Amino acid sequence: MPISNESRAQAKTVIDRCRKLAGFSERPDSTSRPFLSPPVRDCHQEIAEWLEPLGLGVQIDAAGNLRAFYAGIDKAAPRLLIGSHLDTVPDAGAFDGALGVVLAVSLVESLEGERLPFGIEIVGFSEEEGVRFGTPFIGSRALVGRLDEELLRREDVRGVSVRAAIEDFGLKPGEIPLARLKADVLGYVEFHIEQGPVLEELGLALGVVETVAGQSKREFLFVGRANHAGTTPMHLRRDSVAAAAEWISLVECEGKSVPGLVATVGTVEAKPGVANVIAGETRLTLDVRHREDDVRRRAVERLIHAAEEIAARRGLAVTERALLSQPSVPMDPGLVEQIEQAIRKAGCEPHRMASGAGHDAMILAEKVPSAMIFLRTPGGISHNPEEAVEIEDVAKALEAGRHLLELLAGSPALQRRMRRA
Amino acid sequence: MPISNESRAQAKTVIDRCRKLAGFSERPDSTSRPFLSPPVRDCHQEIAEWLEPLGLGVQIDAAGNLRAFYAGIDKAAPRLLIGSHLDTVPDAGAFDGALGVVLAVSLVESLEGERLPFGIEIVGFSEEEGVRFGTPFIGSRALVGRLDEELLRREDVRGVSVRAAIEDFGLKPGEIPLARLKADVLGYVEFHIEQGPVLEELGLALGVVETVAGQSKREFLFVGRANHAGTTPMHLRRDSVAAAAEWISLVECEGKSVPGLVATVGTVEAKPGVANVIAGETRLTLDVRHREDDVRRRAVERLIHAAEEIAARRGLAVTERALLSQPSVPMDPGLVEQIEQAIRKAGCEPHRMASGAGHDAMILAEKVPSAMIFLRTPGGISHNPEEAVEIEDVAKALEAGRHLLELLAGSPALQRRMRRA
Repeated sequence: MPISNESRAQAKTVIDRCRKLAGFSERPDSTSRPFLSPPVRDCHQEIAEWLEPLGLGVQIDAAGNLRAFYAGIDKAAPRLLIGSHLDTVPDAGAFDGALGVVLAVSLVESLEGERLPFGIEIVGFSEEEGVRFGTPFIGSRALVGRLDEELLRREDVRGVSVRAAIEDFGLKPGEIPLARLKADVLGYVEFHIEQGPVLEELGLALGVVETVAGQSKREFLFVGRANHAGTTPMHLRRDSVAAAAEWISLVECEGKSVPGLVATVGTVEAKPGVANVIAGETRLTLDVRHREDDVRRRAVERLIHAAEEIAARRGLAVTERALLSQPSVPMDPGLVEQIEQAIRKAGCEPHRMASGAGHDAMILAEKVPSAMIFLRTPGGISHNPEEAVEIEDVAKALEAGRHLLELLAGSPALQRRMRRA
Repeated sequence: MPISNESRAQAKTVIDRCRKLAGFSERPDSTSRPFLSPPVRDCHQEIAEWLEPLGLGVQIDAAGNLRAFYAGIDKAAPRLLIGSHLDTVPDAGAFDGALGVVLAVSLVESLEGERLPFGIEIVGFSEEEGVRFGTPFIGSRALVGRLDEELLRREDVRGVSVRAAIEDFGLKPGEIPLARLKADVLGYVEFHIEQGPVLEELGLALGVVETVAGQSKREFLFVGRANHAGTTPMHLRRDSVAAAAEWISLVECEGKSVPGLVATVGTVEAKPGVANVIAGETRLTLDVRHREDDVRRRAVERLIHAAEEIAARRGLAVTERALLSQPSVPMDPGLVEQIEQAIRKAGCEPHRMASGAGHDAMILAEKVPSAMIFLRTPGGISHNPEEAVEIEDVAKALEAGRHLLELLAGSPALQRRMRRA
């Protein structure tokens, strides 16, 4: 279904706005906007200017999240949150995060003042990437009451704590509890680029996230014996690189043989790391993800056993430790179904999928029905200045968003929730 | 054949002297004695003290090599060089290099003033390891006329040139040509620890080096595409670590399947090197050695083709470049045979072997008949403070050395050479 000129124009505005936000950066030539860095203020200011004609005031909560409320027919009606995050990785693209906030603004604009049975709160989370403090989701944690003392004490590379960063930005850490979700929240919807190649490969514009995959991150250390590469015959070696290589191939095999599993060795460090010395130690990381926690755990167990078997057979030692074990987070089935319908109404075939990356929706899901809509990502390229979106896909996302608001407005489930709220 | 108390005492002196030299170091707690560093002077002084009772004066040539001449029956008789190097790697053991110089001193001592039909020149090379200037064999190059202007201009990490280092040590670079071998040199014999596990595995004390293996050193770079480890399905990856791992396993296979070949991947660098990112680039080094140059070259070619095949099949690119291509250097067959006999006379089974590492004998072989005697190295451990020798093996090396001097003194080949010299 081709898009109308009006849709195209709106989508162009969305893309232009994302590119404008990308200009607010700590660096002159690339986009880098960590948590509560000075360009974040420019971002907030810019978004406030877009919202002003709609009569929406912008609040920055004590965690630095941008929040703007568009009331429903009844001003006391419960609210649907729509948003994403405004921070970026270093040398970022223009769409990861920002697109979800800009689309939320455009959706409210496209209502042209029409009031719904529920309010809409636009949210621009302050921190999702985990760049500055090594901990992601600081913004959304505040909404679910998990921005605690321990996290506030955490320091960045310059020794500035989260608390001090909040104060430096002119906010009051004491008011963080006020950022929490109230009982009047119906749910959370997040538009986000897929950051992967799946939709592109399927030739589809939009996907609906059913679940955020669980993730295991572990470190492995193979210890053999460093030795002279010229004087040590092959059969007398305890080569940690050769052992690691054998295991890496098995990791890839495991990923390929279990449907939906991804398994990655992203870091390899051989010591001493000299061309003419057989490496005595090789350290690696393993990242395994799957929508089903049991499948993921069994895969990790098999890979641990494989590492032990390889090490034992080769006369090496292997140790390993967990760096992260994050269960999968299902999205709200009702909301997923309505998003699926909305995408279909926009003339697209909706693809139900797992998100391999973590998102704010995963945090919000602890407290409120949450779901995500993925936009096709050309080449699967993200966290990179080449990150892009197709204008047609953005137009379809806007259409799907409008259909979703309509569907939600008329849904019996929503009516029940609204009576409860 | 058990060793006598006298042999044991002499061997103990050799080991004690090696340990004493190891104390002359740039560092307080470990042995580190690069080319013409201050502790080298202490070394020279110490050796001069050992030689003084024998009436031998010590000369330091313009390349910093220690040279001491023990004349033959006829003072003008040609000379046999015996020695090794006095520099060390950082955090070195006590025997790599030093043992060969100390054994030369002990052999002359054990003559108890007896004069042979030829003279003996003890040589303690100033530089073999290549630590300070990144170029090995600076000392022995001077003897064959290859310490040239280009090498003299080379600088260490502090910007000091070889020339300046020589001047700082109080030597005259203009006199380097005087360090060259004269026509009166019969040959060069070097005792050295094996630095590998072969003799130990065979249960043998001594080996005779027939050839120094040729060496190919190359760098490989697999280039795929960096991508999100969570959002990129296995079948859409171009993972440079997985490609490199497949190739490393083939390198090991190649080494194991070709007799006498060693093939090593000692360095692996994955970029960006982050646990949750599929590495876009992996850089590796390959070190391949064999006594026969053709065998080595064919192995390297097969591994280059394998890398290309793996890259093509996986949709990656691979580039590679040569870092070093050093042909094998045969030792002098006549000298090898006499060393073999001498070892047998000392009651040991001589093992003919290739040296997987480069040695000064490889450089001297360009000009004079050269050969090496390897001593068993416990655990194959070298370039390490744990580096050791067995006292019995040192005693056998001394005995073999004395038998070698006798054999050479009586050998018709030597007589012919002496008449020519």
